[in-house]
Amino acid sequence: MAGAPGSPGSQGAAPGWTPELLAELDGYAASLANWGRWGTGDQLGTLNLLTPERRVAAAGLVRSGTCVALGRRIGGAPQPDDPLPPVQLMKASGEAAAARGGSHASDWLGLAPHGFAVTHVDAFSHQFLDAAMYNGRAAGMVTTSRGAGAGSVEALAAGIVGRGVLLDLPAAQRRPWLEPGEHVHPADLDAAASELGTEVRPGDILLVRTGRDARAARHGRADPITAGSPGLAADCLPWLRRHDIAVLGSDAASDQMAPGGAPHPMPVHAGALVLLGLPLLDNAWLEDLAAACAAQGRREFLAVICPLRVRRATGSAVNPVAVL
Amino acid sequence: MAGAPGSPGSQGAAPGWTPELLAELDGYAASLANWGRWGTGDQLGTLNLLTPERRVAAAGLVRSGTCVALGRRIGGAPQPDDPLPPVQLMKASGEAAAARGGSHASDWLGLAPHGFAVTHVDAFSHQFLDAAMYNGRAAGMVTTSRGAGAGSVEALAAGIVGRGVLLDLPAAQRRPWLEPGEHVHPADLDAAASELGTEVRPGDILLVRTGRDARAARHGRADPITAGSPGLAADCLPWLRRHDIAVLGSDAASDQMAPGGAPHPMPVHAGALVLLGLPLLDNAWLEDLAAACAAQGRREFLAVICPLRVRRATGSAVNPVAVL
Amino acid sequence: MAGAPGSPGSQGAAPGWTPELLAELDGYAASLANWGRWGTGDQLGTLNLLTPERRVAAAGLVRSGTCVALGRRIGGAPQPDDPLPPVQLMKASGEAAAARGGSHASDWLGLAPHGFAVTHVDAFSHQFLDAAMYNGRAAGMVTTSRGAGAGSVEALAAGIVGRGVLLDLPAAQRRPWLEPGEHVHPADLDAAASELGTEVRPGDILLVRTGRDARAARHGRADPITAGSPGLAADCLPWLRRHDIAVLGSDAASDQMAPGGAPHPMPVHAGALVLLGLPLLDNAWLEDLAAACAAQGRREFLAVICPLRVRRATGSAVNPVAVL
Amino acid sequence: MAGAPGSPGSQGAAPGWTPELLAELDGYAASLANWGRWGTGDQLGTLNLLTPERRVAAAGLVRSGTCVALGRRIGGAPQPDDPLPPVQLMKASGEAAAARGGSHASDWLGLAPHGFAVTHVDAFSHQFLDAAMYNGRAAGMVTTSRGAGAGSVEALAAGIVGRGVLLDLPAAQRRPWLEPGEHVHPADLDAAASELGTEVRPGDILLVRTGRDARAARHGRADPITAGSPGLAADCLPWLRRHDIAVLGSDAASDQMAPGGAPHPMPVHAGALVLLGLPLLDNAWLEDLAAACAAQGRREFLAVICPLRVRRATGSAVNPVAVL
Repeated sequence: MAGAPGSPGSQGAAPGWTPELLAELDGYAASLANWGRWGTGDQLGTLNLLTPERRVAAAGLVRSGTCVALGRRIGGAPQPDDPLPPVQLMKASGEAAAARGGSHASDWLGLAPHGFAVTHVDAFSHQFLDAAMYNGRAAGMVTTSRGAGAGSVEALAAGIVGRGVLLDLPAAQRRPWLEPGEHVHPADLDAAASELGTEVRPGDILLVRTGRDARAARHGRADPITAGSPGLAADCLPWLRRHDIAVLGSDAASDQMAPGGAPHPMPVHAGALVLLGLPLLDNAWLEDLAAACAAQGRREFLAVICPLRVRRATGSAVNPVAVL
Repeated sequence: MAGAPGSPGSQGAAPGWTPELLAELDGYAASLANWGRWGTGDQLGTLNLLTPERRVAAAGLVRSGTCVALGRRIGGAPQPDDPLPPVQLMKASGEAAAARGGSHASDWLGLAPHGFAVTHVDAFSHQFLDAAMYNGRAAGMVTTSRGAGAGSVEALAAGIVGRGVLLDLPAAQRRPWLEPGEHVHPADLDAAASELGTEVRPGDILLVRTGRDARAARHGRADPITAGSPGLAADCLPWLRRHDIAVLGSDAASDQMAPGGAPHPMPVHAGALVLLGLPLLDNAWLEDLAAACAAQGRREFLAVICPLRVRRATGSAVNPVAVL
Repeated sequence: MAGAPGSPGSQGAAPGWTPELLAELDGYAASLANWGRWGTGDQLGTLNLLTPERRVAAAGLVRSGTCVALGRRIGGAPQPDDPLPPVQLMKASGEAAAARGGSHASDWLGLAPHGFAVTHVDAFSHQFLDAAMYNGRAAGMVTTSRGAGAGSVEALAAGIVGRGVLLDLPAAQRRPWLEPGEHVHPADLDAAASELGTEVRPGDILLVRTGRDARAARHGRADPITAGSPGLAADCLPWLRRHDIAVLGSDAASDQMAPGGAPHPMPVHAGALVLLGLPLLDNAWLEDLAAACAAQGRREFLAVICPLRVRRATGSAVNPVAVL
Repeated sequence: MAGAPGSPGSQGAAPGWTPELLAELDGYAASLANWGRWGTGDQLGTLNLLTPERRVAAAGLVRSGTCVALGRRIGGAPQPDDPLPPVQLMKASGEAAAARGGSHASDWLGLAPHGFAVTHVDAFSHQFLDAAMYNGRAAGMVTTSRGAGAGSVEALAAGIVGRGVLLDLPAAQRRPWLEPGEHVHPADLDAAASELGTEVRPGDILLVRTGRDARAARHGRADPITAGSPGLAADCLPWLRRHDIAVLGSDAASDQMAPGGAPHPMPVHAGALVLLGLPLLDNAWLEDLAAACAAQGRREFLAVICPLRVRRATGSAVNPVAVL
């Protein structure tokens, strides 16, 4: 098996980590880590839980044929949560075609997938703990000049297809949204599942709605770095492991972020990506899914996430779909 | 209903179109056009054929749970078919994290989705005929400074989910690949379906394999502009309309391209995108799918294509999946 | 000779132009235009006035050897006058070199030269009047797919070297800065020259300081689109022609912009670039030059502007120097 | 004073360095290093030699007023020496302006300044030796996420103005060009100065022509990595120090590169940038300058190099000028 993960605090922690948080994650390290669970060379992590049988079963969840996109819109003017928006430029335009009898238009897009305004998948090369990524590969394999020499999003390219389940926390708690900076604890997840009449199963693609976008629709978009963001607390990590979640998604950044500015520790990122080998879907657009689920009285569906096959990349912008 | 499409040649044709080709497309214009079929404001085109019922039926095609990615790899050094490869740069690297106790790596990606080396969806704003796009919208709405004011790929973002069917032409014809510049005619499509024991149905996501990548594996990658590419001839357009295909994909560029350099007329692009309102999936990676289909003795499957929700964009890089 | 410029309003004006402003520019068109003055094929415009003799004389202005940079800093976080700052990314970093024994670092820079936060030269392809640029070339030669087929900044690449003269308007008017939206008229220019004890001569590289950056140092940077900007009024165009200015620079955008948001007519851009063939230097950094001129009691110096030789480009970021 | 540079080989050398080359550079380290010569906080290096007096004298070299650009063209299709050419895209085009009455065109440019096809200045943050840059600053200050925390090209932005001198090696040796891989030794430099009737003086901006572009005009452009490039040998470093050169430029990459592919040691880069604090001008366009010098029978001139003031950057594309 792969070597066991070291103590998270052993090498000098990233900014913002308190001794208590480090101790907490340290306590999980031995019990949670999936290192070696699927072989020392494994690059799929919990995607191994998306077995063919579970995919077949997930396809059976399609009943109404309703299809909902889970990616947020890309592009537009700078926003508080998107201070450096994508570069969108045209290579050929329709006005030129109209003027000269040409036949096509095309464009060019440059973007940083890991931004707060981009729905994206985090590959294992995105996150390190004690200079290691999932399954003990060295952080130093992710270089500036050559990119992700291990843990590339390419490894996740085929087949994030499975049972999706939506835990709509505001709906379960009968309020419009969770407040920035609020922690979500395991009891909150269990209560939501119970209240919404669903259950979480091994191999699930779990989507946790905090209502971030409902709040933005009312109060405007905010910078999660300074305004904070609701999200899972570190004590959800054993819960994720116990339920053998395959993918964790959220309409925010998975991790709770306190208001007041950086640095923000990211224990759920560290624990999920590094220890559990569990890919994350950050900043998903869950408003349409929440409405569809409410309308149909269901919380489970076929979920499909298709990261681009980008060589040596730490993640990919995505537009997943849920089919109910 | 929307105005009928004009004569393709009336305004001055794009380079490379012969009078015969223009006359042929002109002959199709009246009979083929789907303008107004789903309302004058429609932006979905043949995606309207992907009905909920058909999605439910397509989900029922998942039997083995095998999942195959249909997007080709993005990135790497310049290639004959990719002379201007994507810009891939890092925003934070693992070697820095290792040196300073940091916790994450991230990257930046700039690319032109419509390149020959990128698997991508063409939105309706990508293609014009007589200065119009699907449903009669003016080409001039696609501007350099503001992008696709109509026909954006955003409109296609939710729900390209349906029955996929692979017409593996080389397999049906018992040869390793089609030669660059070869035309594919309706009889070839029918013969392949028959030979492979499958059928093409309304609302299908039709994937036509030419063996481009099998040839590249033997002879190296080639520039389709100069070396040519196999693809559908214009006379396939009535066939596409008659079968009510929802999406047409190929491992090449859909249109046949003769060797010898530009300009290349693109009658299938023009006819499909503009007249039929039929989105195209260009340059798909079909090698793994062909192998999986052959192994399982099936040619139909659940197909899911998830274009990014890019504002005012003419298309999107994608990594579709087939689930067998 | 080249055809005379048409009436500015004849083809449908750009947004923001009042009938009065159009009439004013129309009145100048016949008398001001330098079209044909240096031949119908000329691409240098008033840079023809930078004769070898004048360059030799300008070199003679170097007395103290003091050298001052006139380009503002590029990069950093978004600012009101720079909402879409340059993309700055590393291709190789020093931390990697330190970790692995490597030897170099390098970077990548993407930017739009014509932004308000970038000191740049406007080439003739940047500006049109009645669909024409300087010397009657068609605006349509500047295409999205191939760039500036005429009027490229390449033509200006060799030799913007001459006598620089600074008209420091706030200094002449004994106030800290001009207010946003203030018009500068010919009398203001003449009074400043007189007050500062200098004169403007044919072939000069004229730099007009409005104090924009002194104001920003006190009140913060502002978006010229909404907050307005001081600058030359259209009635300065005959003055520029009469004095045979070779290059006009400013610490703002040359044209006055009224507060309140776009659209902003740009009569000085149109008149200078199109009619006069006079290249502009926008958003120069003049604070250090103003201080050096004040300290040395001089307003003239050797000025050198070096646009990058970018193929088919409408302008270039620059960092000019003044040598006193 | 700053600490003396360590032994070049002490920390593990970059690829391609032979023990002999390391020993040679090691031998120079103590005697050559300018660390501390202008103070421990100095960021100008040998630009300190460009004194006001020398600038005044250099301005006196302008006699004919002839002005020559020294930057090569940027942009166009991929080339052997430019496999990843700049990204050039339009933000607004003239055809749009023509169609809609608009008034301007503008563009966007993305480039890696340190490429072989870009005339550029290397800042001190570009090069390390034993994890240090000029004046002993740590290589680790140049980070992926924040750029050049020391040694930025910004420090060089004001005033690379001085006496330029061209050592046209092929002209002095009466042959069309130096061959790829040829070494240039101190005796070659001295012989060229003597043959051409000029001399090299302290504070000079020294431009060494190898004839790279004359060869390319005949035989086509070549990739210096594989085809090799002529350039200075490491034994020129003491010569550069003895002559107190302020800036070293070349039409190639300064360092000799042997044919046959990477890795290439860069002892002149390491010695000049790190030990001497001597900025380099790589890949200058010297063909026009060579012709002008030959025509006027002179080899000295006023040289002006204006790097863009890019924050935290390792270098800048430039288009220097020579005024004769």
